[in-house]
Amino acid sequence: MRWAVVLAGGVGSRFWPLSSADRPKQLLPLAGERALLVEAVERVLPLVSAERVLVVTSRALAKAIRAALPGVPAANVLAEPFAASTAPALAWATARAAAADPEASVLSLHADWAVGDPDAFRAAAAAALALAEQADVVATVGAKPTRPETSYGYIVPGAPLGGGARRLTRFVEKPDAARAGALIAEGALWNTGLFAWTARRFRAEIATHTPELAGGLAALDRGDADAMYGAVRPVSVDVGLFERTARGAVVAGDFGWDDVGSWAALRRVRRTDAAGNVVVGDAHAVDAKDCVVWSEEGTTVVEGLEGVVVVRARGITLVTTAERAPDLKKLLDRLPGMLAGERGA
Amino acid sequence: MRWAVVLAGGVGSRFWPLSSADRPKQLLPLAGERALLVEAVERVLPLVSAERVLVVTSRALAKAIRAALPGVPAANVLAEPFAASTAPALAWATARAAAADPEASVLSLHADWAVGDPDAFRAAAAAALALAEQADVVATVGAKPTRPETSYGYIVPGAPLGGGARRLTRFVEKPDAARAGALIAEGALWNTGLFAWTARRFRAEIATHTPELAGGLAALDRGDADAMYGAVRPVSVDVGLFERTARGAVVAGDFGWDDVGSWAALRRVRRTDAAGNVVVGDAHAVDAKDCVVWSEEGTTVVEGLEGVVVVRARGITLVTTAERAPDLKKLLDRLPGMLAGERGA
Repeated sequence: MRWAVVLAGGVGSRFWPLSSADRPKQLLPLAGERALLVEAVERVLPLVSAERVLVVTSRALAKAIRAALPGVPAANVLAEPFAASTAPALAWATARAAAADPEASVLSLHADWAVGDPDAFRAAAAAALALAEQADVVATVGAKPTRPETSYGYIVPGAPLGGGARRLTRFVEKPDAARAGALIAEGALWNTGLFAWTARRFRAEIATHTPELAGGLAALDRGDADAMYGAVRPVSVDVGLFERTARGAVVAGDFGWDDVGSWAALRRVRRTDAAGNVVVGDAHAVDAKDCVVWSEEGTTVVEGLEGVVVVRARGITLVTTAERAPDLKKLLDRLPGMLAGERGA
Repeated sequence: MRWAVVLAGGVGSRFWPLSSADRPKQLLPLAGERALLVEAVERVLPLVSAERVLVVTSRALAKAIRAALPGVPAANVLAEPFAASTAPALAWATARAAAADPEASVLSLHADWAVGDPDAFRAAAAAALALAEQADVVATVGAKPTRPETSYGYIVPGAPLGGGARRLTRFVEKPDAARAGALIAEGALWNTGLFAWTARRFRAEIATHTPELAGGLAALDRGDADAMYGAVRPVSVDVGLFERTARGAVVAGDFGWDDVGSWAALRRVRRTDAAGNVVVGDAHAVDAKDCVVWSEEGTTVVEGLEGVVVVRARGITLVTTAERAPDLKKLLDRLPGMLAGERGA
């Protein structure tokens, strides 16, 4: 049977001041009316029943995530003792699926994406699952780039594997704009983090290629997550597995994927007015262009500005530029100590 | 004896959303720690004792203004039945001074200015009073221009009257920048609205030159303000008297005068940080330049912007540009009906 693993551990400081330790990015309705996490789970439900959705998150967030997902069994929300990048999280969740179902195949995704075309998303996910099941590979879905984005990773596809799939040759992480343009010209895809594998193949691959997890495999096999986390080193599945295996494959998809990396991304993933502004809440953009105005409290009026981000939430008003929005952490580091308690948000 | 009349009726919509019908500009601490009105009265107290300070305002504001000025007798706060520009207000207040003191001379000023050099202000005011008393003229103080400001009126001085005073030849209201520059080059001064006259001369001048007030003079003489206001037509003292009289005189002053006409003016009248930002309240300007950030509530952070005005007060956040700040009324006219109740603010 097919399972879905949703990675939902992020703290989302790039959505300060709306995001907080209690309510990080994936629990915010950034792309629509519902939290990104809720949309992520509902997006895969036509492929996988809710009883086979696993969510990996932090202990701090497990309760809120169970509350946000009443259709997902509480035991399916796996609370990591600490964050250790994606490979341990996916190893744990894949082992849980395998314990229930040795023939499990797993689709892995993140809780905090926006997807413009859910049908195309599911078609690509299904293609990756079928490829993983039929060709015994670890598969990744690459999204067709629509711009030379410098905050994404790129996948360079290699030789054809049949059915539109290709060998995975290499990853390029966050190229500059010129390099990104060149990668796109040679057919590179965005590395989305949408992966598929059979539990059996994944277990074999990490045993072979991922020494960072080697010390935890015995604990993993007996279902002792705490012991496993105590014995692994943090590593992403991209670096720890996909960059090392010869059984990597990529299928291309075109489904309006966005990782919603900053306030500025909301102009891509939400409806804009005729002047390109996103306004949420009691917000008004007058003679303004390409602005994001999010008014969680009170009334917010933005006039005569272009490319500005204004967010009012939790007693704090942030006014910055779209260009600086991805670097909110730098801003928080520079603010006085009174805001220190906010920095993990 | 010398009296001071402080005009304090303004509604101050240009300081929305901080200003409101209950707390207009003159009751806000825009230039310092205390309300502009309080600073205006304290500024003249070395010249005039508090018992001889008269304040003209609206009925809606009289109570708040009496509360703000505990040293001024409550009966000295004159509440107009409705606003009718400055000539009726000054006629009423001057008549009140004359009723108590037929030899009164009157200094007239506005409640909502900022003055950088109070000693120089008082010196100029005293010179205007002395001129009015000794030369039997209606005197105005012109401020030496420091920039070709287009939102001010200009006074063109004429022939010398002795003691540094000159005949008042004409007013030029709100010239464009080129004309303002030419006026400054020929020695024109800013029309501040700081005036001086004897009660006797003023009464004679308005009887001769101000037909808008003619119907109200009898009521004025018997101290019936309601009847007077019911019988006059609105007119400013500039137009209704100074532009028509041959007994107008002007003395120049240089005292850092500012009419605090908009949020942008705060950069001139308040202390700025090294990057030219004014920050008030729990406000933070990071990599920002020439911004005004006023945080009456909560925390406000402005990053990476230049020449922006951000105000948070009364549940409303305004983000606009310094250039547009003087035109806040236009913005309020364009906002949805939900803000209609705010428009008188």
